Amino acid sequence: MHASCRRLAALLAPDEISDNTALLTDQRRRYTGRADLLLLPRNTESVRKIMRFCFENCIPVTPQGGNTGLCGAAVPDGGVLLNLGRLNRIRAIDTADNALTAEAGCILQNVQAAAAEAGRLFPLSLASEGSCQIGGNIACNAGGLNVLRYGTMRDLVMGLEVVLPDGELVSHLSPLHKNTTGYDLRQLFTGSEGTLGVITAATLKLFPLPQVRETVWTGADGIAEAVELLALIRSRFGERLSSFELVGRDALDLSSAFCRTAKPTDAPWHVLLELTDSEARPDLGGLLAECLLENGFANSVLAQSEGERQTLWALRENISAAQRGLGVSIKHDIAVPITRVAAFVERCGVALQSAFAGIRIVVFGHLGDGSLHYNTFLPEASDNGVYAFENAVNDIVYEHVLACGGTIAAEHGIGQIKRHRLNSVRSAAEIALMKAVKAAFDPRGIMNPGKLLPD
Amino acid sequence: MHASCRRLAALLAPDEISDNTALLTDQRRRYTGRADLLLLPRNTESVRKIMRFCFENCIPVTPQGGNTGLCGAAVPDGGVLLNLGRLNRIRAIDTADNALTAEAGCILQNVQAAAAEAGRLFPLSLASEGSCQIGGNIACNAGGLNVLRYGTMRDLVMGLEVVLPDGELVSHLSPLHKNTTGYDLRQLFTGSEGTLGVITAATLKLFPLPQVRETVWTGADGIAEAVELLALIRSRFGERLSSFELVGRDALDLSSAFCRTAKPTDAPWHVLLELTDSEARPDLGGLLAECLLENGFANSVLAQSEGERQTLWALRENISAAQRGLGVSIKHDIAVPITRVAAFVERCGVALQSAFAGIRIVVFGHLGDGSLHYNTFLPEASDNGVYAFENAVNDIVYEHVLACGGTIAAEHGIGQIKRHRLNSVRSAAEIALMKAVKAAFDPRGIMNPGKLLPD
Repeated sequence: MHASCRRLAALLAPDEISDNTALLTDQRRRYTGRADLLLLPRNTESVRKIMRFCFENCIPVTPQGGNTGLCGAAVPDGGVLLNLGRLNRIRAIDTADNALTAEAGCILQNVQAAAAEAGRLFPLSLASEGSCQIGGNIACNAGGLNVLRYGTMRDLVMGLEVVLPDGELVSHLSPLHKNTTGYDLRQLFTGSEGTLGVITAATLKLFPLPQVRETVWTGADGIAEAVELLALIRSRFGERLSSFELVGRDALDLSSAFCRTAKPTDAPWHVLLELTDSEARPDLGGLLAECLLENGFANSVLAQSEGERQTLWALRENISAAQRGLGVSIKHDIAVPITRVAAFVERCGVALQSAFAGIRIVVFGHLGDGSLHYNTFLPEASDNGVYAFENAVNDIVYEHVLACGGTIAAEHGIGQIKRHRLNSVRSAAEIALMKAVKAAFDPRGIMNPGKLLPD
Repeated sequence: MHASCRRLAALLAPDEISDNTALLTDQRRRYTGRADLLLLPRNTESVRKIMRFCFENCIPVTPQGGNTGLCGAAVPDGGVLLNLGRLNRIRAIDTADNALTAEAGCILQNVQAAAAEAGRLFPLSLASEGSCQIGGNIACNAGGLNVLRYGTMRDLVMGLEVVLPDGELVSHLSPLHKNTTGYDLRQLFTGSEGTLGVITAATLKLFPLPQVRETVWTGADGIAEAVELLALIRSRFGERLSSFELVGRDALDLSSAFCRTAKPTDAPWHVLLELTDSEARPDLGGLLAECLLENGFANSVLAQSEGERQTLWALRENISAAQRGLGVSIKHDIAVPITRVAAFVERCGVALQSAFAGIRIVVFGHLGDGSLHYNTFLPEASDNGVYAFENAVNDIVYEHVLACGGTIAAEHGIGQIKRHRLNSVRSAAEIALMKAVKAAFDPRGIMNPGKLLPD
């Protein structure tokens, strides 16, 4: 440990210093970093103390939440690993203003539960909700299952408490629905992946709690038909549509075996959709079934109980876990306009098969907002050998994404894995502006170096 | 005209140069500016040409939309007045992605109409919608009547096309619902009041079109009772609640006389609320009437036709026009948490009466999101004499706003009228960051100087 790190440690309580080196490796075990100090500050004041010291001594700081990120953004490369997990209080719930103030280390599921207990919905929902943390969700602008109705995390943040790189506190946690007083720094921190400051708390928007959920699994001959179904459901049920997920045949086969659950339908493509309504609407399920039948989706399964609903969702949510049986994959977190999803999947599949004979492509994702998890397996490559082909596979995938007007990073961020590709979706002028913003916020370059922005 | 301005004029088509000096005065006739050139560029390419020239020659540029702003942000102080009104094409409507791409000069009402024609809702709605423009709405992060359900303009922008101060184009108009690729520059431009670049087009979010609207006017004994009604309607009708407006007795008296419409109810306070649903729901009006009756709001008027609905809305929307009969007012565009509105109105009213005997206070606004138009009239002062008291009145109003955790600028922005007060709601560290951002985007300081940021 450097002498300066020893001095920092001496400023903190003993239980704010950790020796849990598991925090240095990301969830996918893709990256293992190093740190001179692993810190678990108790509260915002402690974060300020740490940042003041690190600023004065030019020590790099990597903020970390639940360490569930998929792009290596929370893996440090020396200096301080600042895990926010102990800032886990829900500070306030205000039902009149539909607002909840949570500290950065609150686990998403606990925030959802606290909102529900107060008769409200916090709509962010994603596979890692049992371990990811609010601060990380904000830092990477998380998306998930309900974006088509409620937006991404960016749309759900009313206010932030942030510790700047020099330890200065910026705090706006009053539940104000309208506030236009200069540049929106809150929106700069959202999605900045720990490179501009440390988010320590946030005031989040709440929504009416659904009184009814109707969940359907159905088959489709092609993605175009699934997109038609999306339009149909939207025109019939409007804002009630909360989720509209696409699952490829291969993805369902894997998940069905993994979950030991029979496939609800047999088709080349599958859709899992959910309507919710904050008004008790006993007729909603019947209307949905009728609509599907009338429009030729006769092979639909409408969940008849909460248990059946969870079984259907488990098939969707366990695809990632199930596909691990195929070995190491090259994953893509992409989005294109909804009208281009079918063309992208078809053309990119052809191009990949032609370049890598026998490549296996597992496709699933959030058709309702145009984002896909597009994961590729090279059967001939050994586990570690896969990465030798990563750049070549990515070149093909991203070429097709960009040709369809899409993005190479929909909801997982850039981290360290995609920073060298940022220039494919942002112009030189934009990257220069981002670097200038970075320099303004973090003049000593101590915040999460090596992430997000290219060198 | 400076020689450099003559050279700029020579680069443009004759019809891109205007002599309409009415554009130099703001809607309220509070400010009259001056400009060396009034320009009406035909398209984005022309805006780029103008910006390149102005950048090279260090000529100040003030972007202007419909010139309906209330804070003097679009009034120039020399240089070029850049009116975007001719960039008024709707470039695309994409119903699958629920997105509409409009140029900056599109009038808000035309965007609403184009969306409706495509079977979609563009929900931004405000009194000046017949003349304000989309670019201005974005530049000042407009709010209005539907914020409690759909958010402010910031929440409605999917992508922007922006000309940077040096003429460089940044364009992200693909309808992507998820895209997390570095700092969100789009959100920096939104609410920046023309100080960072020129917004030339935007891709906007669309929503399902309401099939039913139920509109009610009702009386309340006090603001606390109105807040209780808000909670009641929300718990009963959830996301259907689209507007919840508060109108003080004085405001209604003025508007009722101005509109020559009888007052629907007689009470110290009034609420105008609207439920909408994208599903045809013939039972919704009956359920709403029943709910109001059961909860003691027996004196409610439920609009029985579109004509009756418009009559009720006219009473709300003509308050600003009606109050002009009282002379020049000192206006405030404030927001506090909903639970603090009653305390704010009571305490601030007492303080103002004690400092300015006979002061008349017209209160109305968007209770559903906690923002108020709080307008004060000093009966003893002549029209122009009112402004002598402005600072003293503002000191009292803003002191009470801040004591309630509120903001001095909810939905009209800062412009030139409030820039010296920005430091009451943003810390020195935040203002320093904003100035650094400004310097990064606009290193020559040509974009709308004298606005938003304090010197």
